[in-house]
Amino acid sequence: MSTQNFSVDGMTCGHCASAVTQELKALDGVTSVSVDLVADGTSAVTVEAERELTPAEVAAALDEAGDYSLVP
Amino acid sequence: MSTQNFSVDGMTCGHCASAVTQELKALDGVTSVSVDLVADGTSAVTVEAERELTPAEVAAALDEAGDYSLVP
Repeated sequence: MSTQNFSVDGMTCGHCASAVTQELKALDGVTSVSVDLVADGTSAVTVEAERELTPAEVAAALDEAGDYSLVP
Repeated sequence: MSTQNFSVDGMTCGHCASAVTQELKALDGVTSVSVDLVADGTSAVTVEAERELTPAEVAAALDEAGDYSLVP
C-alpha cells in the first residue's frame, strides 16, 4: 500500500473536489482519495493505492475531471 | 413573459453555475436561465419566466443548489 500526495491547481469548490476524487478513484489500484481544498490556491490531494501512481496518469485523471492541473 | 436579473454570490466554477441553473429551472414558469459567472465575485443570473419570481423563492432555490446567496 502506498500513500501519495499531490498538489493540484484549479479546484475552487466542493463540486471540483468531487469531480477530481471520482476520477482518481477510477484509477486502477486506488483505494481512497482525500482532498484538502484550497479554493483560491493549490489544493492538497492524498491518494492511497496498491501501487505507485505515475504523475502522467494523475495528470490525465485531473484533465478528465475538468480544468485542473498537477503542480510539479 | 418576464426577464429578470439577479446578482448571486458564491458561485466559483461551472459546476456551481450548473447547480444554480438546474434549481432555478425547476421553479414554476421558468423557461430559461443563463449565468454570467464571476468566479471571485458576484455573478449575474438572467431568468426568463412566464411570471414574476419573488426574491424569496429565488433565494430558496439558491440555497437548495448549495452555498449561494442572492445579493439584494
